Amino acid sequence: MSDLSFYREEFLNYLESNLYKKEPVNLYEPISYILKLGGKRLRPVLVLISAEALGVSYKKALDAALAVEVFHNFSLVHDDIMDDAPLRRGKMTVHEKWDVNTGILSGDAMLIKAYQLFENYEGEQFKELAKLFSKTAIEVCEGQQYDIDFETREDVTIDDYLKMIEYKTAVLVGAALEMGAIVANAPKEIRKQIYEYGRLIGVAFQLQDDYLDVFGDPETFGKQVGGDIIENKKTYLYLKALEKSSAEDADQLRHLYTILPTNTTQKIETVKHLFETSGAAEVTQQEIARYTDKAFAVLNDLEIKEEQKQLLKDLGEVLLVRTT
Amino acid sequence: MSDLSFYREEFLNYLESNLYKKEPVNLYEPISYILKLGGKRLRPVLVLISAEALGVSYKKALDAALAVEVFHNFSLVHDDIMDDAPLRRGKMTVHEKWDVNTGILSGDAMLIKAYQLFENYEGEQFKELAKLFSKTAIEVCEGQQYDIDFETREDVTIDDYLKMIEYKTAVLVGAALEMGAIVANAPKEIRKQIYEYGRLIGVAFQLQDDYLDVFGDPETFGKQVGGDIIENKKTYLYLKALEKSSAEDADQLRHLYTILPTNTTQKIETVKHLFETSGAAEVTQQEIARYTDKAFAVLNDLEIKEEQKQLLKDLGEVLLVRTT
Repeated sequence: MSDLSFYREEFLNYLESNLYKKEPVNLYEPISYILKLGGKRLRPVLVLISAEALGVSYKKALDAALAVEVFHNFSLVHDDIMDDAPLRRGKMTVHEKWDVNTGILSGDAMLIKAYQLFENYEGEQFKELAKLFSKTAIEVCEGQQYDIDFETREDVTIDDYLKMIEYKTAVLVGAALEMGAIVANAPKEIRKQIYEYGRLIGVAFQLQDDYLDVFGDPETFGKQVGGDIIENKKTYLYLKALEKSSAEDADQLRHLYTILPTNTTQKIETVKHLFETSGAAEVTQQEIARYTDKAFAVLNDLEIKEEQKQLLKDLGEVLLVRTT
Repeated sequence: MSDLSFYREEFLNYLESNLYKKEPVNLYEPISYILKLGGKRLRPVLVLISAEALGVSYKKALDAALAVEVFHNFSLVHDDIMDDAPLRRGKMTVHEKWDVNTGILSGDAMLIKAYQLFENYEGEQFKELAKLFSKTAIEVCEGQQYDIDFETREDVTIDDYLKMIEYKTAVLVGAALEMGAIVANAPKEIRKQIYEYGRLIGVAFQLQDDYLDVFGDPETFGKQVGGDIIENKKTYLYLKALEKSSAEDADQLRHLYTILPTNTTQKIETVKHLFETSGAAEVTQQEIARYTDKAFAVLNDLEIKEEQKQLLKDLGEVLLVRTT
């Protein structure tokens, strides 16, 4: 997708020109650091492409795209503190490189900076962007809280899990696309549909991420394969496997999700096997396909030019058709 | 000031009706907890009185007032984590009652909720409120960072200190008053003046707080008298005393600000004595008077009805004429 990399480059140039060296340095250096750490920049690219697909230049959407990326990085900085994570994209996390207090305060400043980026839009557009942003940001916080709660809850259902990933991940994908639509002054109905497209793609994307975390190719996945199993994360695969297993297998799986062995190879292999024999792996793939189909159906119904629709379709495919 | 207590009561009723029990409880309970912890509610009352003084009912300003109070409490929750403070208003801090992660995430949600409260205002008013809010919130973060930096810096000047308290405390007082003016659709010039009045009152208020922390009456001050001395806080009094002392006294003072004795009585007495003999205590009082006079001069120039001006003057006097 040469188009995507074009938008990515344009975004990176804009990001670069918006990083400032400002006093107090201990507040602003960590912000530049995390924003320059890399990543696929998917969310801002979604904003830009959505704006183009709905008829305005991506250039008008650069501030909204940057707001989404700054917000995403704010959530990474605070989540990394909460998860006590030493590394992010192979580099030290902010609270490791500086300290927890710096991570908290720089994160706070990033959240505020994200709102400030919307100030470059006029009255009503500003309000629409900020409203959508606040609603989404609160949902992301709620998703993070559910994720934390699930660690110690034994009664998490599949619906609970789907709601959690919707809030923690999918709504921001939907919001990124809708922001492009707001910048393009698209009608309310189109805005709702494009948000829905993003939300469904976002859920499929997260389910796929869970799937690849177990069954992905270590060469291409980017993260440590088996990481969720090592951390006893109650993902869709795990919950579905519990549901579909015999009582005996379910007990074994539950037990495996209470231990933290030093040598993880055996645990990963056993859990993988249970995910497969229970049929959970297959059901997960079906569920990914179901969300993806629903997403593309919503996109098909969208009354915009076919050529513009294609851009959005390519985007979904890039997000979802990753090598398994 | 019976008027002030009327606005305070009205604000508290509005706050009470806006506290929600919502899922996930671990995110929303800490928010209700901190918001119900009490405090003088000065900032929201400033918003309400400013709106009345500039000609609209305080009722129109309740959402902006609540936003300011929610923001102020967000900053308390995150600051208390950074300061490792066990108590706030005599009760457990959020991160003590729950944990640090809860404090971080609930704080984040409060910052977003503050923005959402502005959504009850129309397009341009919304934008003006949100812009002023973002600018102020970023300055409060910068002020907090300077405050942290000063702990380990040996070259803090009086100008540095004044900038820090301006950002950390005074700009929110100015912003609270200007928000009332925005709700009242006051002209730009009036808005600027009323902000300036608040900013100057805010600096005077903080200098007075520093002064009372050392020389206040333990019966009426509310906090532990001598607390800043115990914690080696480089306040205006300390910096001015260093400037005005003999080399020998300055060395003694500097030394006293490196130790943390178990029995603090002797240290407090010695430092108090140095603050007095150096003339720093007197200069601080002059400085408070200078900021107060400047504030009231700005207020005098304000072209609004005398009766309305009186409300704002009363407010400043309540803030500043506390028993010493």
